[in-house]
Amino acid sequence: MSDDARHDHLVGVLGGMGPAATAAFYAKLVRRTPATRDQDHLRVAVWADPTVPDRVAAAVNGSDEPYPAMLHGALRLRDIGATEVVIPCHTAHVFLPRLAADTGLRFLDMVHETIRELARRRPAGGVGLLGTRGTIVSGLYQAGCREARLDVVEPDDAAQAHLDVAIALVKQGEVEAAGQQLQRALDALVERDASPVVLACTELPLAVPYLPAPGRVELIDPTDLLADAIIRECLVGT
Amino acid sequence: MSDDARHDHLVGVLGGMGPAATAAFYAKLVRRTPATRDQDHLRVAVWADPTVPDRVAAAVNGSDEPYPAMLHGALRLRDIGATEVVIPCHTAHVFLPRLAADTGLRFLDMVHETIRELARRRPAGGVGLLGTRGTIVSGLYQAGCREARLDVVEPDDAAQAHLDVAIALVKQGEVEAAGQQLQRALDALVERDASPVVLACTELPLAVPYLPAPGRVELIDPTDLLADAIIRECLVGT
Repeated sequence: MSDDARHDHLVGVLGGMGPAATAAFYAKLVRRTPATRDQDHLRVAVWADPTVPDRVAAAVNGSDEPYPAMLHGALRLRDIGATEVVIPCHTAHVFLPRLAADTGLRFLDMVHETIRELARRRPAGGVGLLGTRGTIVSGLYQAGCREARLDVVEPDDAAQAHLDVAIALVKQGEVEAAGQQLQRALDALVERDASPVVLACTELPLAVPYLPAPGRVELIDPTDLLADAIIRECLVGT
Repeated sequence: MSDDARHDHLVGVLGGMGPAATAAFYAKLVRRTPATRDQDHLRVAVWADPTVPDRVAAAVNGSDEPYPAMLHGALRLRDIGATEVVIPCHTAHVFLPRLAADTGLRFLDMVHETIRELARRRPAGGVGLLGTRGTIVSGLYQAGCREARLDVVEPDDAAQAHLDVAIALVKQGEVEAAGQQLQRALDALVERDASPVVLACTELPLAVPYLPAPGRVELIDPTDLLADAIIRECLVGT
């Protein structure tokens, strides 16, 4: 249907975790794709299943309760021809290697893209890490950062409590209130000289426009990096 | 995976026409769904194929060039279990009856939902209609409005020219400039006493936040009505 090599790709988005984050991610992918007309854009299929059981509880408890639903979604994306798959949920990345092995699908890894960008920047001090308790406890980011010799500043209990509320508020559509909670978590990391700070939960970028005091610290949004990785992948050879 | 009847549904979105409008529509569906946590949301699959040939040219010329790509997408949504399908593109609704017949899928019809809402409101004067030349020429809205005994005010050539530019600008991500062009098309309809005005192209709602003089006339956004129709459909019996 198209002679353009970018259209040999079908980008699969394994989403719904949560739905607002998935919608924002797809909008971002569209916005960041160099395009002047519809036909310049990428072919995308989104599987958004919000019934996937809680990823955070699973990561904290080491359970694999969310896995069957995630596998089901990845297989549906494979059924309809996805050539690459991305997951716009950090905590769910705990299951990415197993999904790749069980489906044979090529996954682009948001955590990997982020650590690569951090390594490129070589920050002088510690990198702040804001994510769900599941993402923090699983060590998803810490292992790669250690390898890249990057110090990580994790939220303390009070900051994590603000962050948990911020994430829940985004899931409820309360993005303004979420911005206030996110600010408190950010400020706690800034006090400990973390810079930049990684928004390692895909709900958090939705609250950033509502930060009461933006600009106190540089933010890294891994969903930007994942979108750009997709675009690079699909535009090679075009 | 869920005992909730809403999760017996898988909402298929036949999109990519254009991509930004599809992303905005999915975000709107999420925002309008009554939910306090991920698991309250609907299961959604989006097939976003921006390579579908130009719908406007086809509607104007009476060609069915876009149809094979649209059918392909609808069949992929059927393959993965879609129980209802929606198309967040007005012009593409020209092909909806044929898609429904060829796939056996249940489609929710955005044009139908909009005319029903207009009939409910019984505006005193004419209803303004802003859409692509394809949507206008095809008579998609006019036939239903006639049946519901609603007068339609169509854009004149100058207004349509502003509208064409507005739609192209949204597809290029230039939403602010699009807002200015949309304002000129709107003002032309307001001068002719049209009220309300239907934004019968899914790119137009993306320009509304950038109208230089908002509030001059009541706007009807059919993507709101389509999202609400989906939610009603899936939440019946829950």
